[in-house]
Amino acid sequence: MSNERLIYLPLGGSGEVGMNCYVYGYGKPGKERLIVVDLGVTFPDMDSTPGVDLIFPDIRWLEERRDRIEAILITHAHEDHVGAVGHLWSRLKAPIYARSFTAHIARLKMEEYDHDVQEVKTVSAWPEQIGLGPFSVGFLPISHSIPETSALVIDTPKGRVVHTADFKLDPTPIVGEPFDPDLWGEVAKPGIKALICDSTNVHVPHPGRSEVTLAQPIEELISGAKGMVVATTFASNVARVKTLAEAGQRAGRSIVLLGRAMRRMVTAAVETGVLTDFPRTITPEEALSVPRDHLMLLVTGSQGERRAASAALSRGKYLGLEVKSGDMFLFSSKTIPGNERGVLRVVNNFSELGVDVVDDSSGRYHVSGHANRPDLSEMHKLMKPDMLIPMHGEHRMLREHTKLAAENGLTSVVAVNGSMVDLSGKTPEIVEYIEAGRTYLDGNVLIGALDGVVRDRIRMALNGHVLATVIIDEDDEPLGDAWVEVMGLSETGRSRAALVDVLEEDINQFLGRASPKTLRNDKKIEDEMRQIIRRTAQDEVGKKPEVTVVISRLS
Amino acid sequence: MSNERLIYLPLGGSGEVGMNCYVYGYGKPGKERLIVVDLGVTFPDMDSTPGVDLIFPDIRWLEERRDRIEAILITHAHEDHVGAVGHLWSRLKAPIYARSFTAHIARLKMEEYDHDVQEVKTVSAWPEQIGLGPFSVGFLPISHSIPETSALVIDTPKGRVVHTADFKLDPTPIVGEPFDPDLWGEVAKPGIKALICDSTNVHVPHPGRSEVTLAQPIEELISGAKGMVVATTFASNVARVKTLAEAGQRAGRSIVLLGRAMRRMVTAAVETGVLTDFPRTITPEEALSVPRDHLMLLVTGSQGERRAASAALSRGKYLGLEVKSGDMFLFSSKTIPGNERGVLRVVNNFSELGVDVVDDSSGRYHVSGHANRPDLSEMHKLMKPDMLIPMHGEHRMLREHTKLAAENGLTSVVAVNGSMVDLSGKTPEIVEYIEAGRTYLDGNVLIGALDGVVRDRIRMALNGHVLATVIIDEDDEPLGDAWVEVMGLSETGRSRAALVDVLEEDINQFLGRASPKTLRNDKKIEDEMRQIIRRTAQDEVGKKPEVTVVISRLS
Repeated sequence: MSNERLIYLPLGGSGEVGMNCYVYGYGKPGKERLIVVDLGVTFPDMDSTPGVDLIFPDIRWLEERRDRIEAILITHAHEDHVGAVGHLWSRLKAPIYARSFTAHIARLKMEEYDHDVQEVKTVSAWPEQIGLGPFSVGFLPISHSIPETSALVIDTPKGRVVHTADFKLDPTPIVGEPFDPDLWGEVAKPGIKALICDSTNVHVPHPGRSEVTLAQPIEELISGAKGMVVATTFASNVARVKTLAEAGQRAGRSIVLLGRAMRRMVTAAVETGVLTDFPRTITPEEALSVPRDHLMLLVTGSQGERRAASAALSRGKYLGLEVKSGDMFLFSSKTIPGNERGVLRVVNNFSELGVDVVDDSSGRYHVSGHANRPDLSEMHKLMKPDMLIPMHGEHRMLREHTKLAAENGLTSVVAVNGSMVDLSGKTPEIVEYIEAGRTYLDGNVLIGALDGVVRDRIRMALNGHVLATVIIDEDDEPLGDAWVEVMGLSETGRSRAALVDVLEEDINQFLGRASPKTLRNDKKIEDEMRQIIRRTAQDEVGKKPEVTVVISRLS
Repeated sequence: MSNERLIYLPLGGSGEVGMNCYVYGYGKPGKERLIVVDLGVTFPDMDSTPGVDLIFPDIRWLEERRDRIEAILITHAHEDHVGAVGHLWSRLKAPIYARSFTAHIARLKMEEYDHDVQEVKTVSAWPEQIGLGPFSVGFLPISHSIPETSALVIDTPKGRVVHTADFKLDPTPIVGEPFDPDLWGEVAKPGIKALICDSTNVHVPHPGRSEVTLAQPIEELISGAKGMVVATTFASNVARVKTLAEAGQRAGRSIVLLGRAMRRMVTAAVETGVLTDFPRTITPEEALSVPRDHLMLLVTGSQGERRAASAALSRGKYLGLEVKSGDMFLFSSKTIPGNERGVLRVVNNFSELGVDVVDDSSGRYHVSGHANRPDLSEMHKLMKPDMLIPMHGEHRMLREHTKLAAENGLTSVVAVNGSMVDLSGKTPEIVEYIEAGRTYLDGNVLIGALDGVVRDRIRMALNGHVLATVIIDEDDEPLGDAWVEVMGLSETGRSRAALVDVLEEDINQFLGRASPKTLRNDKKIEDEMRQIIRRTAQDEVGKKPEVTVVISRLS
């Protein structure tokens, strides 16, 4: 037993917000039995991942050790925790465990990719525990911004580990279980070896507020509205959707759910029993015959996503519904860093239509789903772990969380994606660095972040693309002139002649003078033509384009 | 005289933050004499303008009326007000007027483009006025985040117009003139026809704070620092640079200015006399022999710009200087919406190096240069104009500013770029819409925003680019096989064969079967090949690429 160890290895989510994937292992080094916690996605952006559809953690390390994986455990149904299940399951093929609502969402994702939905097993909440090789794991209810979020209590021969998942300390979360400090205190009683703890809000200095505090301000806001009311939030925030719908109902408004995710989440929550007493909704068609001041739309698109209902409404009609001057639009949400431009585009569109936009700047219409700094301290003190490992967050958050741990007298270490941490001893020890990167879903193909495919696209976007074609005949002589096509560059430049003409003139001059030896050498022709094109384009339009040279030999 | 009118026409800055350019005209409709206020730039982003260097207002309307332009007046030396002077002057060729510091910066920009610097005339502050055709214009000092910012008092036969420029109400701005309510009251005495007023901070509910309030918190922060201190702010915020440098000096540190803009701005401010008593600075070379805890670097890059000093330091060394664990980095600045990702990248890099980053979240180390909502009200009440036109801001800001104007009993109208407003009557009246767009500096070429060049680049970035080449011989038969080059797409797809091979197979199959009639028709071949390539790529990799087809005819 003495040479067995307990390890923790984040493959996604540590050093970033999103794409959560954590591994725990127990056994002899290199032979540990493994459990995987969460398989999430992160979202692409134009700056670094243009054209990419989704981003997953690189799970090659896990794939190569597939026979050692006991299970995949999903803590909650947010995309950054469950979103990659459909895409990546076939590479791991381990059974998936989750509680009812989360399992329901996971099965929908498995179905989409034709995997057997029975691979997803529904488990009960703590105190039930499931045996997974050397591990015994329980799903401990914790409050967050989606129903049935669960921390994991992971019992091992080296002691008890608690993986908090994303969480907040909410005694009145509207939907789902309240945070129960007594229950958590019970769990901590035998002693906690390590607390692996959410870090995303460590920089927020004040204690978090409960979901329940929003009901009154939102109701007052809606009661005061004159025209139609449209509100958006994350569809998965079922409690918020309920709060909004109930406030609308009490203000005498009929409720319409707009956007696929909005309908899907509410349906899933009702079907799995986590959502009860949701106000009656009407269809968009029925809404057309309801007076505007008796109508409230709950829509997707809180992050300004171009294709979501909110953006569509801001540009005009959506499913026959239309916003008008005097209507109100409520963002009951926070803008995630990086999404500001998209959100402001929507806000300004609404402004042009004469719609009053209310956002979270007053702090009255949104609360976070994550534990703030004082809440994290409370968790530290409740659990009294031997060590704390900050989990889920950018590097600055993980680092700040280690400082907070130190304030609270706890040993900790920053472990970013790929850091294998040995939890067996008195202090956490990073014993190995695994290559942990990102995998892109690009169209329907998985590509590595370092494959160069996206890098080439970024280069074309920044520099434009020039194609040059030349035919070389059986005698190694150019047959006719070479020609050039240009994409993403100005048609004319400094000389005021067409850029294509200037480029063709320069490469044909080169070809005309090239020695027979050069003309027998494709590589040489290509290099020379590329250089000439880049130099001439730089002279003419001040840009060095990407260049593709095609040499067609008749021989 | 009765059929002469006074017009206002924003060409940039109204409906956006940045790219300021406003036109005032007086005379018979269509024959007004014109003055231009500011010629600014805005900055590109990867989402909408990849590869673009700078963005200017589209000034074709002005260019076509060049003979009617009396002058170009520059209110202050921020890039979004003066940045386009070098690039666009030759298309307008009107004399430029500005106060000393601003004129200095404008001349540097004229020099860069080989324009005669004598076209930039230095003017004195109010009460001096310059006659410009039907206008008499004075530069009225106002506080902002750059020295010598001036509102314009524009006297016309229809009355006095005040164009505020960007401003705040700061009685103690450290550098430059304090806001002087008595002086402004004097200006308002004859009655103000129209107040054209900065709108960017209309959503900020509390009164603005003075620059002077920062000195003590910053000094306390620096005094408490253990290692090297690095601070960043906008280089043009000369007052802030001075505050930071003085705080460093008082804490016993030697000051180093890093980054071209930082040195250039301080030099310009000293040379034009607006900056006095700036602490002595040392060079980066000298800094190498100063103990780290006696050193303070003032660096460019408050917006996370990749090439600025702050980003360079966060990645390692810059000019031999290196940050280390225990150093402190201070953002004495606000992140402009859209720049969050870049700033967070820098913050996380520093976190990895063990550097403590202090930002503006406490509100102690930065104040805005713009008038907040209560300050705008104060300005409204001080000026008591017949009408208020919200200027400089996104649509949502302009709209909110009209609401504030209404609260203060003022008539106003939202006038976005291209809206020609007749100010002659009792209320502002939009009389015409001019096509007002954007012009891109792309490399060294100016292109229209709607030319399609950047659209093509965005498409290549999202979809990849496929090139197909086929040679057709004298008998209209394909000579050999067509071939395909691919850029920015996965090498293999669904069939696990090389994508290039699958594409070539499909187009060669088409060419093999094509009728003689089709093979004589380039357009037809191109269309068919493009369709086949897009369909096959969609099947294989799930993306529809941009396609360029090159047909080489031997005939």
